[in-house]
Amino acid sequence: MSEIRRDPTTGQWVIIAPERGRRPNADDARAHLATSPGQPYDPACPFCPGNEELLPGIVDEMSCDEAPGWLVRVVPNKYHALDSGIEPKSGNGGERETLPGYGFHEVIIESPRHDADVAHLSASQLAAVMAIYRARYVDLIARPRIEAVMVFRNHGPAGGASLRHPHSQLIATPVIPPRLTEMASWAEAQYGKNGKCVTCAQIARELHDGERVVEATDRFVAFVPFAATSPFEVWILPLGHQASFADSEEEQIAEFAALLGGVLRRIDKALGNPPFTYAIQSAPSRHAAAPYFHWRLRIAPAVVVSGGFEIGGGLPINPSSPEDDAGALRSAEPNS
Amino acid sequence: MSEIRRDPTTGQWVIIAPERGRRPNADDARAHLATSPGQPYDPACPFCPGNEELLPGIVDEMSCDEAPGWLVRVVPNKYHALDSGIEPKSGNGGERETLPGYGFHEVIIESPRHDADVAHLSASQLAAVMAIYRARYVDLIARPRIEAVMVFRNHGPAGGASLRHPHSQLIATPVIPPRLTEMASWAEAQYGKNGKCVTCAQIARELHDGERVVEATDRFVAFVPFAATSPFEVWILPLGHQASFADSEEEQIAEFAALLGGVLRRIDKALGNPPFTYAIQSAPSRHAAAPYFHWRLRIAPAVVVSGGFEIGGGLPINPSSPEDDAGALRSAEPNS
Repeated sequence: MSEIRRDPTTGQWVIIAPERGRRPNADDARAHLATSPGQPYDPACPFCPGNEELLPGIVDEMSCDEAPGWLVRVVPNKYHALDSGIEPKSGNGGERETLPGYGFHEVIIESPRHDADVAHLSASQLAAVMAIYRARYVDLIARPRIEAVMVFRNHGPAGGASLRHPHSQLIATPVIPPRLTEMASWAEAQYGKNGKCVTCAQIARELHDGERVVEATDRFVAFVPFAATSPFEVWILPLGHQASFADSEEEQIAEFAALLGGVLRRIDKALGNPPFTYAIQSAPSRHAAAPYFHWRLRIAPAVVVSGGFEIGGGLPINPSSPEDDAGALRSAEPNS
Repeated sequence: MSEIRRDPTTGQWVIIAPERGRRPNADDARAHLATSPGQPYDPACPFCPGNEELLPGIVDEMSCDEAPGWLVRVVPNKYHALDSGIEPKSGNGGERETLPGYGFHEVIIESPRHDADVAHLSASQLAAVMAIYRARYVDLIARPRIEAVMVFRNHGPAGGASLRHPHSQLIATPVIPPRLTEMASWAEAQYGKNGKCVTCAQIARELHDGERVVEATDRFVAFVPFAATSPFEVWILPLGHQASFADSEEEQIAEFAALLGGVLRRIDKALGNPPFTYAIQSAPSRHAAAPYFHWRLRIAPAVVVSGGFEIGGGLPINPSSPEDDAGALRSAEPNS
């Protein structure tokens, strides 16, 4: 069983999950990713249709009238970092604060095809993936004792992926991930000073400046942030104020998916299928209706390695210019 | 010229250093590290004696009476993230806060031998390296507008190293790295509640419990922290309260070096020469004499890859048990 521990000397929360150590290991996965040829079905893959006996269960599915079977499927993560089957407890606030590892850890299988690639899914398929992101988010953020839900994706072994079949993940936690706490505190303080959402203000300014914008639609914008922490980092945000990913309306989701797909294809083209991660940074439940928190999807290509300075100090060094990176992504036309 | 930018929507500081993008790149370095046979001298290496024309300068050197030449050498980092030659300025506090990239970025060459390995340096050689860490720290932390000095080391390409010749680095910054700010705030709040240094209290408890201790000497202890953020993370701390690495006395340094060498050899033996980073987390100048801040050297083997959850949320998942890891390191006798 995993635990959530807080370091008494630094205040840092950590999920201690030795079960995760037993998942298909990084070396094997790397070898597998390097050698397995593109094939639509792998008999050993738990995420391929027909191999359901390899799954711990099925949480949700989405299908369409035109084709048999499922389009997108959600399953529990077999090597979960947190477990919904155990009793949640509050922290004791004492030294060596420890919580049982209660929470949810799910896998979102993005296609029945083993060899599909997220950047090149059809528009309707990617829209179905985003719709199920939202449905799972809305369900889990409302559960008792869940403080935050993070939907994320790892692509390529250097992006942390350990299985080839295209999938995203979702972890719902009984503590607020520190980065979200920092974002909320900062944004709330700015709101206190200026009486408006600092992100809404910055979106307007980015659209006006234009130099860091990659692409915009009626309701969303993708830009390289002013203080990007790594090369080719891109944020996708709703233009109108929304604190939570749960606030996105169903009709917006297809537009959001189309923009995400376009940006991923630009990154693919500009950098040659780099490893990357993305995550949706959405308001923790206690900030769900906040006029200051503004959700975003943050894409981080894994093209530089963090060293001791970044790990020890938490001050990123970005060896790239956000303005140049945005220009390169604008030039990398996704459909050409 | 590099810049230090603060993201207006999150408050996150970042060093934007496009010059760093021009250093020997990670792919080349990986190939070089993989193929270059162990050799004591490499004619193309700027850190080998005799190749001084490849260096931008020399900052400091340490030698001994018994041998010609230098034992340890400090040079400016050719691909610096921060530059001491430009005019420092204060932040304007406004939106899109930007500072010029003023600061110091130095390389500490740990041996004249190209093929030396930090874990297997002689005791006196490693003591000389630590003594020069301290000398450079003491010099730079006192410079005007420098808020913090971080000494760190990257080992192996997955640890961020881009040159084979054994070296550490040091970056002195005009902003406080966020991790140090968080540590200081947390520790100060704990001090306010309990009237004592939370780290001093935890050290006593770790020594008493024993299960996470790797090794202890008269004046230092090495343990896997209670909430280790990754497998085989180890901290080395002074037993007596010291806020700043600058407080370590000269006679302590050899003892510190011997313990560090022993721990690195244990990690080497237990994990088979893994990539790793370490960093000295020492009090920022404004907390230099604080009764709550307690400096430490933090070793992080790079054996797991951070994915979207960790990057997006800042909540680490450690797929290992700190107690088991400490046991494995205790069993890995460094000299057997």
